[in-house]
Amino acid sequence: MASHEFTSIRSPRIKGVRRLAKRTFRQRERRFLVEGPQAVREALAAGESSPAAANSSVVLELYATAEAMQRHIDLVDAARAAGVPTHRVSLDVMSELAQTVTPQGVIAVCGFVDVPLEQVGNVRLAAVLSHVRDPGNAGTVLRTADAAGADVVIFTDASVDPYNGKCVRASAGSLFHLPVVVGVTAADAVAFLRDVGVRVWAADGGGTKDLHEVADSSQLDGPVGWVFGNEAWGLPDDVVRLTDGAVSVPIYGGAESLNLATAAAVCLYTTARQQRRP
Amino acid sequence: MASHEFTSIRSPRIKGVRRLAKRTFRQRERRFLVEGPQAVREALAAGESSPAAANSSVVLELYATAEAMQRHIDLVDAARAAGVPTHRVSLDVMSELAQTVTPQGVIAVCGFVDVPLEQVGNVRLAAVLSHVRDPGNAGTVLRTADAAGADVVIFTDASVDPYNGKCVRASAGSLFHLPVVVGVTAADAVAFLRDVGVRVWAADGGGTKDLHEVADSSQLDGPVGWVFGNEAWGLPDDVVRLTDGAVSVPIYGGAESLNLATAAAVCLYTTARQQRRP
Repeated sequence: MASHEFTSIRSPRIKGVRRLAKRTFRQRERRFLVEGPQAVREALAAGESSPAAANSSVVLELYATAEAMQRHIDLVDAARAAGVPTHRVSLDVMSELAQTVTPQGVIAVCGFVDVPLEQVGNVRLAAVLSHVRDPGNAGTVLRTADAAGADVVIFTDASVDPYNGKCVRASAGSLFHLPVVVGVTAADAVAFLRDVGVRVWAADGGGTKDLHEVADSSQLDGPVGWVFGNEAWGLPDDVVRLTDGAVSVPIYGGAESLNLATAAAVCLYTTARQQRRP
Repeated sequence: MASHEFTSIRSPRIKGVRRLAKRTFRQRERRFLVEGPQAVREALAAGESSPAAANSSVVLELYATAEAMQRHIDLVDAARAAGVPTHRVSLDVMSELAQTVTPQGVIAVCGFVDVPLEQVGNVRLAAVLSHVRDPGNAGTVLRTADAAGADVVIFTDASVDPYNGKCVRASAGSLFHLPVVVGVTAADAVAFLRDVGVRVWAADGGGTKDLHEVADSSQLDGPVGWVFGNEAWGLPDDVVRLTDGAVSVPIYGGAESLNLATAAAVCLYTTARQQRRP
């Protein structure tokens, strides 16, 4: 184990890591931060399988406190075995790097994992995030899409950055589990999906079609893509018009609406169930 | 309009309202705070229909800034028509009373709306929150249960207080839409539901039964209750044993689990759909 420990938050290297909390620097360097042992473990595992990684490690550098290095020795060993430079840092430095209130002592610098739209193939279930602004919501939808067996999640250019720390944490590792596309327009995303034979629905609280009726009439049995919109105002009309129609989750009680992540979960799982029926 | 305006955060009345942010005082006075025009509107509407209100108003007092009073004149009129004392407060006082970072200028003091378990009748769909600790999650599950047409939501004594400000906000008014029961044990909640002919399932990521198989085998067609557990560790074995079985939302992709509110949404909506099939 290297005996050197970074103890100064003024170290150029530490400052270089710290600034990845900002989108501008993430995009310039195509790197982002992953916090906590579980998420870092998923990032290390992704190095072997990620479509973006192409046999090189997703994790580029690992930073951990002495205590975390002891507690997560498996993780440090795995990082070293993959040739990932591993650095010990003081508690002060960890607090400076971490974006959480109670840091878990482990942070990885990772290379971007998104793939170009053209590299995505064989889509049975897709989620498109259009104008989703809250990183926690976006990460939760990514995690749910992964759980529901989606083949791709597309973040349009009008949505939050999937490499935002809150989004990475809310995704609970799912960012590393399936192909993620970023920065395309909603129009390009929908056109691509339809080109590869996917029926595309707009999830919209004001939609004229009822999700359960759409499911019952076998319109979710084949390849399906869902476009999810803004938390407050949904989807712009010009995006809805590109799709096969606006579908709403039925409201049987007194609630006026569902929150975005909840509605997305119901749409994605209703589809996953239909697609797997005998 | 009364010309008096509360401008001091040291006023005994304002201090009396402020302390309702704490559970101890809420429980002593059986009063809680509702923030924002939309939620207050729902609380006022609940006065007419709530099973707990019995023709008296749920809203006991209204506090608003001069600006908010102008902007939401409909709301102030409705409050006065219902005989609710309405008080103008300065921006400083509003900031002191509000629990949000950007207060919307309207706060109501409301009486508790929960009902005793024995008053709940005719249950087709129920949600039981057992050991749910995050108020945002609890409020989201309450909102989703309402949307899915649940007849009752039960907060056990091991769960977060539904009158917590974050829970009230996340519920988006649903606290006023359907009977809510608080403070019973999980055992009493499950026993009550089974007594009135409800089949009770434990939602558990480690459950041996697959939600979609349970649905396909018509086991969600009749009256159903769902017990949801802790965000991190799920449900204690002794609670699961009281139910008809532990059911998990199937994970088709690489995600290890779903978050609590997402899993609850899938369970509740899968049930709502089954119950409404021809």
